[in-house]
Amino acid sequence: MSSFVVALDVGGTSMKGGLVGRSGEIILTDRRVTPRDKGPAAVVGAIRSFIDELAVAGGGTPAGVGLAVPGLVTADTALYSANIGWRDVPAADFVPLDVPVMLGHDVRTGGLAESVLGAGREISDFLFLPIGTGIAGAIILKGEPYGGTSGWGGEIGHIPVFPTGEPCACGQIGCLETYASASAVARRYSARVAGTPTSPDASATSASRASSSFAATAASPGVPVTAEQVAALTASGDPVAMEVWDDAVEALSFALATYTLLLDPAAIVLGGGLAEAGRILSDPLAERLQERLAFRDAPPLRSAVLGMRAGMLGAALLGWRAAGVPDAGATWPLDVLKSSRVA
Amino acid sequence: MSSFVVALDVGGTSMKGGLVGRSGEIILTDRRVTPRDKGPAAVVGAIRSFIDELAVAGGGTPAGVGLAVPGLVTADTALYSANIGWRDVPAADFVPLDVPVMLGHDVRTGGLAESVLGAGREISDFLFLPIGTGIAGAIILKGEPYGGTSGWGGEIGHIPVFPTGEPCACGQIGCLETYASASAVARRYSARVAGTPTSPDASATSASRASSSFAATAASPGVPVTAEQVAALTASGDPVAMEVWDDAVEALSFALATYTLLLDPAAIVLGGGLAEAGRILSDPLAERLQERLAFRDAPPLRSAVLGMRAGMLGAALLGWRAAGVPDAGATWPLDVLKSSRVA
Repeated sequence: MSSFVVALDVGGTSMKGGLVGRSGEIILTDRRVTPRDKGPAAVVGAIRSFIDELAVAGGGTPAGVGLAVPGLVTADTALYSANIGWRDVPAADFVPLDVPVMLGHDVRTGGLAESVLGAGREISDFLFLPIGTGIAGAIILKGEPYGGTSGWGGEIGHIPVFPTGEPCACGQIGCLETYASASAVARRYSARVAGTPTSPDASATSASRASSSFAATAASPGVPVTAEQVAALTASGDPVAMEVWDDAVEALSFALATYTLLLDPAAIVLGGGLAEAGRILSDPLAERLQERLAFRDAPPLRSAVLGMRAGMLGAALLGWRAAGVPDAGATWPLDVLKSSRVA
Repeated sequence: MSSFVVALDVGGTSMKGGLVGRSGEIILTDRRVTPRDKGPAAVVGAIRSFIDELAVAGGGTPAGVGLAVPGLVTADTALYSANIGWRDVPAADFVPLDVPVMLGHDVRTGGLAESVLGAGREISDFLFLPIGTGIAGAIILKGEPYGGTSGWGGEIGHIPVFPTGEPCACGQIGCLETYASASAVARRYSARVAGTPTSPDASATSASRASSSFAATAASPGVPVTAEQVAALTASGDPVAMEVWDDAVEALSFALATYTLLLDPAAIVLGGGLAEAGRILSDPLAERLQERLAFRDAPPLRSAVLGMRAGMLGAALLGWRAAGVPDAGATWPLDVLKSSRVA
């Protein structure tokens, strides 16, 4: 068997690729633009080319290929992505080589990596919650991501935390995402400073945008701001920023209380851009979450440890599973992972 | 191996027992009062006596014993029940015979029965939601109940559906149970008719009360009423009843939308007393649930089919599992089950 797999995390903006060895060594990482504006066939073509280039760089045929993709997906078919526009793409279409391949949902594949290699390494049941442009969760049960009956599970970003609250771009009312995503924080602060009513960013509807964009600018043209800046303003005592930040914490506390009461997780692993704010998010959130729960303890909040690499590392695990090594990752040393950097 | 197991569903008010054969034939059912007011040791003693009587009636030693009990429970220990008051009771303490025994959580054991024998027989992932004095759910994943990391999962009755709503007896605000349990419906109607502010029944805090009491009278002494009566008044156009009923439907629709977005179930199986109201509950609930979901279909609502027998039948499955027959139930004929009646 070849000594490496090709791993690809396909996002709406960029694709993060890597070569990962049998013992978890990250041989190479690279990145390409996702040519989403050229249509789904161009994206499939770009994935094929990127996989081919990575394999060539590896000096041979990989043992397998793992891909994390957005939308609705099974292990062997990318069924649907609103973000990219494809429908029913067989796994083999992504790969220009005759090697085994396994697909995974982007957020859940990141959650798998956190489960096997990251913040969930010593626990089996937890929520992986990346908070970025959007919010989607990976429900990890017995160490593995759970996607529900039809693959639409984990949409915690769209649970109604404030039933009579603000409209969400998804068409629902009072969704978590419309208060607590990084984009929402930036948008709601900008709107208040500009004195305009808030309205959600229409692009913030897919589960696939959770992994980045803490630094994304808000929609309001007059007052561009990032969630990172709102966090800094909150820390410095700016009253408008504090109010917007508090709304985000409040919304998250209700959503996490609900998750805790339903699924009794061992921990909640916060990731994505907003979690980079650190304790200005996690301290009030932990306190508020416990206040919401009268008859049980809140689970601990943890920080995700794999960052932007989670999707690619999860894809590497899928690649090794495709190659017939289902326990890949269990013995990988954490220091190897810590040394990795996505280009 | 003996041809039958002893099955017991231990509730706070009564214990439902039965003898169930290898092919699912219900040989006998019986019922005893739970002597909860005499303390936990008396309850354990009553369970021992009841099991002994059932075994004698069966004419021999059972192949195994299954017990559904309230509170926190593992397969071999009843860890804690606020309702009954016990702590750390080993399974063997309940059984006066040297036979294998398995314990299960009351609501989840009912859910197991609906999964293997009832409304979930042809699906693998669903929510079993008995709505009675209280509300607790059994999350069924891949055919089996899921209890979370520490056994506290499924507390959908206490998720915050209205963040600034009415106080719940549990100490939280706006819990589903405080609007939509059978007791809540009766209590809220009575309070409105009497012109007093609503306040939750202080006894409605444990997950174990979900299975009965549609006919329970409300707390307000002046205007005793049952949820069944409120349902009838709603059907006849009584405006106060319609408002209370609508609040219950509204609260349930938010809770089920949240469940659907998180766990993507194949169906939601409604049981317990309030579900006996039939389409006056399920029709508006199905419509409201779909209204809450902008980007996905709502799962179908189904009626539980095992009724009050669910817990005892689930306990019978546990008894057969304890006896080394893990696939008990898979081939049991439904008509046998339909003919059973708990005394």
